Amino acid sequence: MRLGAFMWGVGHHLAAWRHPSADPSLVTDWRHYVRLAQLAERGKFDAIFFADNVGLPASRPESLARNQLVYVFDPVVLLSAIAPQTEKIGLISTVSTSYLPPYHLARKFASLDIISGGRTGWNLVTSGSDFEARNFGLDHQMDHDLRYRRAREYVEVVKGLWDSWDDDAFLYDKAGGRFFDPAALHALDHTGEFFSVQGPLQTGRPIQGRPVIVQAGSSDEGQDLAAATAEVVFTAQQSLQSAQGFYRGLKDRVLKAGRREDEVLVLPGVMPVIGHTVAEAQETYESLQDLIDPVIGVGLLSGFLGFDLAGYPVDGPLPEMPVTEGWRSRQEMFADIARREGLSIRQLYRRVAGARGHKVIVGTVQTIADEMEAWFAGGAADGFNILPATLPGGLVDVVEKLVPELQRRGLFRTDYEGATLREHLGLKRPSARRRADRPGERHA
Amino acid sequence: MRLGAFMWGVGHHLAAWRHPSADPSLVTDWRHYVRLAQLAERGKFDAIFFADNVGLPASRPESLARNQLVYVFDPVVLLSAIAPQTEKIGLISTVSTSYLPPYHLARKFASLDIISGGRTGWNLVTSGSDFEARNFGLDHQMDHDLRYRRAREYVEVVKGLWDSWDDDAFLYDKAGGRFFDPAALHALDHTGEFFSVQGPLQTGRPIQGRPVIVQAGSSDEGQDLAAATAEVVFTAQQSLQSAQGFYRGLKDRVLKAGRREDEVLVLPGVMPVIGHTVAEAQETYESLQDLIDPVIGVGLLSGFLGFDLAGYPVDGPLPEMPVTEGWRSRQEMFADIARREGLSIRQLYRRVAGARGHKVIVGTVQTIADEMEAWFAGGAADGFNILPATLPGGLVDVVEKLVPELQRRGLFRTDYEGATLREHLGLKRPSARRRADRPGERHA
Repeated sequence: MRLGAFMWGVGHHLAAWRHPSADPSLVTDWRHYVRLAQLAERGKFDAIFFADNVGLPASRPESLARNQLVYVFDPVVLLSAIAPQTEKIGLISTVSTSYLPPYHLARKFASLDIISGGRTGWNLVTSGSDFEARNFGLDHQMDHDLRYRRAREYVEVVKGLWDSWDDDAFLYDKAGGRFFDPAALHALDHTGEFFSVQGPLQTGRPIQGRPVIVQAGSSDEGQDLAAATAEVVFTAQQSLQSAQGFYRGLKDRVLKAGRREDEVLVLPGVMPVIGHTVAEAQETYESLQDLIDPVIGVGLLSGFLGFDLAGYPVDGPLPEMPVTEGWRSRQEMFADIARREGLSIRQLYRRVAGARGHKVIVGTVQTIADEMEAWFAGGAADGFNILPATLPGGLVDVVEKLVPELQRRGLFRTDYEGATLREHLGLKRPSARRRADRPGERHA
Repeated sequence: MRLGAFMWGVGHHLAAWRHPSADPSLVTDWRHYVRLAQLAERGKFDAIFFADNVGLPASRPESLARNQLVYVFDPVVLLSAIAPQTEKIGLISTVSTSYLPPYHLARKFASLDIISGGRTGWNLVTSGSDFEARNFGLDHQMDHDLRYRRAREYVEVVKGLWDSWDDDAFLYDKAGGRFFDPAALHALDHTGEFFSVQGPLQTGRPIQGRPVIVQAGSSDEGQDLAAATAEVVFTAQQSLQSAQGFYRGLKDRVLKAGRREDEVLVLPGVMPVIGHTVAEAQETYESLQDLIDPVIGVGLLSGFLGFDLAGYPVDGPLPEMPVTEGWRSRQEMFADIARREGLSIRQLYRRVAGARGHKVIVGTVQTIADEMEAWFAGGAADGFNILPATLPGGLVDVVEKLVPELQRRGLFRTDYEGATLREHLGLKRPSARRRADRPGERHA
């Protein structure tokens, strides 16, 4: 079983920062994230993971002010600072393909991979918000399909740049005056629909060959892109059945894309809330749920749906909404839940706001491990991306209580066996694509 | 006197990596740069400094292979890893304005400033090479004047984004449910000739208010931009007289731009080569000069001049050349030197290749300190950007021998007095521009 520790301010629960146990000033303290990474490493997690976007929805500051995650460090800067303060744990960050030239992305992940000793992963997303677009000269986000077509070319460019140098390119030959072997340098010379990138990259081949490619898009386009290019897929699934369906569907797409099933790991997000008894855990969870500010609950739901619910009665039903170009798949999932169960807006945000659409498991170490084992054994997950409800508290519980139980069951490692994120995940190191494999490549 | 330590592989001298004392594999070892930063911090340097560009001139791999600096980590990633492993020293990196959206730049420097406790500086450059342009979808670099006009708007956007939040914006008020004070959040809403950026930034106000802005452009446009926006200016000057002229000229431009002279520090680059006697230092220097590969010497000169000299006799004179859109000022300086002194191509590259146009001072600790003191006292410099000929050796010499001599003379600090780079440099912390100061700003 693979485990990721998804970092998120002082906890994933929407009201985490207002909980009596929380110190909300930690959100803005970078050392907090270093300590969390070290904690997850003590728990032998495969990786820590930072989400990201590139803007703030600041058109309503009064409403925004009720949220903790208005303050988000540049995740690659933060991971670069964390890298030398950890030894084994993988370091995964989201970086959007929408507004950063692929050369910059390839370069910074190559640098981080080398600095971390081969521990990085890139979570490829496309930006789906107008407020992000408006930080980059656009009035509106790009069309959903266009974003994904562009992302597919983007990831090929990035991989090609990571393949700029052979592994043994650097000779350091003082006498011969050759710092590197010219035959081991490969320009990319890519010209495509969206990008024209000559290369080569300025850093040598990453330690992992290529950083691990992660994706979380669950729309049709997102799944196709993941099947073609991802090695880890994060997903939000509410039930064993839906998780099994997603898992099987994705692995089928992977096969169709000409890859082996085990080349792509599926990790659903899970928010465990741990108590000595189920009742105690439930009490902890309700104490968080009760702190959800209706303005934020409705606001978050509106954000997910791409539709402003502020004018609708909070105890009334979800209105009919147009399909938007935003996070299409999550929008459908939430609307489905509400219609199937006849939930009011308030009931829906209480249901999904806490873990932002991810599965919440409230229980004892035993019942939570049971459910994770059922998903893992039942073809629903290759592991989990853990979203602690509170941080650091929720992660301390997982590391000190849940992980040992998973280890007792033989489901999770008791120590790291490898050094790189690929080794932790059981993913093979890609060999560089050479001239023969790359149509149109001109040898540099 | 302010001192910067300019990092560059295993040394600034063009042949440094081939010197018997060099370990060229350190170029590709990020820990080398951490150790150099720690060494410079022991020497109480104001800052370390990384140059950067965004591509490799790989059209002639055989020739490129004779250079060490084909391998350049993303400098912001590298500085982010260095930050937690140092305590006081400033961390300055070049980042080009040409191909990175200003939102990304503002965000990563804000993050690094916070993570480093207020120790960052941004060296603003524009990219002047076609090989860089070709990594970003362009066939050719932008026109020189256009680049600078664009850079001027760029820096205003970046400053505006750094001013997104008041210093005391974050309340962490759990009971009141207010994470921040909405009145302390300021969207930028910038719309200009080149950029349209809404803001606000996702991180709070940098510890320094704004990271220190550094520039090195010495063309007319470059100096005007520096006079209007820079706080530190790096420059390459060969003689006391030319350095005095540049210093006075720049400070006059600063005054004309409505700023005080002491708001901008001028730091010429200097490569000290230290011996127990002048003769010993000269011998060390010649041992490096003799290792310059003519192919690289001519290549580097060609790069500086934006004109390919490969076809010309190496012992013949510099041919007439067209003015290019590249590094205009350095091109003029080199052509001047050659014509004034009647130098052959070989003689010119030997003269300028070693320190890439910067001043070389070969001597004892006494004679070098004398010359630095003469420049400092003589209105030619507020300090120096030190380019060690070899690394780490050349920097060890400076820290262990030259710095103590400067300290004995009362020219340089014996310990850090402040915590931030601004405090080291004696630059005041800028207050945020508020609505009244910013025409067209709409309160968020």
